[in-house]
Amino acid sequence: MPCKFCKTNPVINLPNSEINLCKSCFIKYFEKKAIKTIKQYKLIEKNDHVMVACSGGKDSLSLLYVLNKLSLKERKIKVTALLIDEGIKGYRDDSIKDAKKFCKEHKIKLHIASYKKELGKTLDQMKSQNPNKIACSMCGVFRRSLLNKSSRELKATKLATGHNLDDEAQSILMNQLRNNIALSSRMGPRTGTGKDPRFIPRIKPFYFLTEKEVATYAFLKGLISKFNECTYNEDSYRFEIRDLLNNLEQKYPGTKHSLVASFIEILPTLKKSFKGKSIGICKTCGEPTSSNICKVCNLTKEIN
Amino acid sequence: MPCKFCKTNPVINLPNSEINLCKSCFIKYFEKKAIKTIKQYKLIEKNDHVMVACSGGKDSLSLLYVLNKLSLKERKIKVTALLIDEGIKGYRDDSIKDAKKFCKEHKIKLHIASYKKELGKTLDQMKSQNPNKIACSMCGVFRRSLLNKSSRELKATKLATGHNLDDEAQSILMNQLRNNIALSSRMGPRTGTGKDPRFIPRIKPFYFLTEKEVATYAFLKGLISKFNECTYNEDSYRFEIRDLLNNLEQKYPGTKHSLVASFIEILPTLKKSFKGKSIGICKTCGEPTSSNICKVCNLTKEIN
Repeated sequence: MPCKFCKTNPVINLPNSEINLCKSCFIKYFEKKAIKTIKQYKLIEKNDHVMVACSGGKDSLSLLYVLNKLSLKERKIKVTALLIDEGIKGYRDDSIKDAKKFCKEHKIKLHIASYKKELGKTLDQMKSQNPNKIACSMCGVFRRSLLNKSSRELKATKLATGHNLDDEAQSILMNQLRNNIALSSRMGPRTGTGKDPRFIPRIKPFYFLTEKEVATYAFLKGLISKFNECTYNEDSYRFEIRDLLNNLEQKYPGTKHSLVASFIEILPTLKKSFKGKSIGICKTCGEPTSSNICKVCNLTKEIN
Repeated sequence: MPCKFCKTNPVINLPNSEINLCKSCFIKYFEKKAIKTIKQYKLIEKNDHVMVACSGGKDSLSLLYVLNKLSLKERKIKVTALLIDEGIKGYRDDSIKDAKKFCKEHKIKLHIASYKKELGKTLDQMKSQNPNKIACSMCGVFRRSLLNKSSRELKATKLATGHNLDDEAQSILMNQLRNNIALSSRMGPRTGTGKDPRFIPRIKPFYFLTEKEVATYAFLKGLISKFNECTYNEDSYRFEIRDLLNNLEQKYPGTKHSLVASFIEILPTLKKSFKGKSIGICKTCGEPTSSNICKVCNLTKEIN
């Protein structure tokens, strides 16, 4: 089947539909869908300073490209990039180069924050001193916190991440299968109201775009030359759920979209149910937390 | 590991825990857990007339046994059984015999309602005249309706079904993966408030007991001599989800419990979200429906 719109050779078959698209029509479709999500969920508004969490990979460079394009069109939006250097040999050095090159080419300001500087140790050091700890779990806690803190210090009003529909479908299912439904209440295309100055609202413009679509976009736009994979692949449960969802999707196209659509339908009531929990201040570091001591301080104590 | 309580030889390892139990301790545990669900969710109260949907299989005979025992202890509860004869050669004839024998032995009144008498045709006839229709889908619509109608005519105040934790976990996941979350809002240990006299509230006392636990109970109590399987096995999606959950459960014990526990946590808000839809009366048959014409009348028209 040729491209639905211009009848030339297709490059992609869209999931959840019988539609084929050529390179140029796919790129239009992709950007339109991201912008639609931004408008529909009011992810970005006039005078926003959007900090894009940038790992140098396909998701974040695609996001940076799309949002930078938007900021050039709508001049009242400012877009800058933030890279967290975890200190992972064999992965981070290359991806920092990719991110720097990309930002230089597109004249985007790139900020870099590092575990070494912030926490005194690289992730490699933490892991070698704590071999029984799962690297991805430690990294998740520190990265989330540092992204928020740095964005706040840099006076950003939104923190954008490259999470796609596959990531979200996996998280929804994982939280359910592990009875962590409270975690899900903090998900969705946008997290945080912006009323608490300690939290920079997090937004996911690629929320309704699949992993395959984002990878295709990055490849067609020449945003990446190779796939850089982190050397730590220790979140085996997520990989298992990813494979399971990919298998279901292949047999029953539309499964991932349905899962996320079901979730979006109940999300407002879910948020209400878990709203009661008040956020305090960590007694050690002063960062926001729902306990006495925040996750970062607890984990830092554990691993030192 | 011996039985946790009496240190004799175990017969079962409980899912989601490291506990082994012997025959007698397992039977106590099983009945206690069903009764706990009944009390906690107020499934059965004084002066209730409980109609047990009885297929003659392991789930429904176990349920009938447990509820009949309860009614002998708490004299203000009446328990009778209702069997739906779909007209399935090679399956139903045998299971009717099992149900009749069981009810005679335990002095339980058994009512039988049949598709042939109610709808003019057996399921076998419907299927042979409509080979493209999925037998399990047709059967589901007619069985649910006939169970409600017969229970109402027999003046039951509750309709109890043998659904277990595995059934519920599968349904929760299926509804999500097919974006049918509204269906899930009508699930849970108890459905229906009892305020609308057209609907007999449905209850599931085995809601927190696994398929394996129910089968073990039925076997240990000698309630069944063989496993009677329906000859129509056409709900292939459910089987796929069942296998997927069984595989996850084996690798990550407690997965099914977690899935159902997450669901129970959001169920009250889910019910609120979907409460708005008013129930009317089918213009053809007068039974309750959310459309103009009920599912039974629509399907009857389609297949005739």
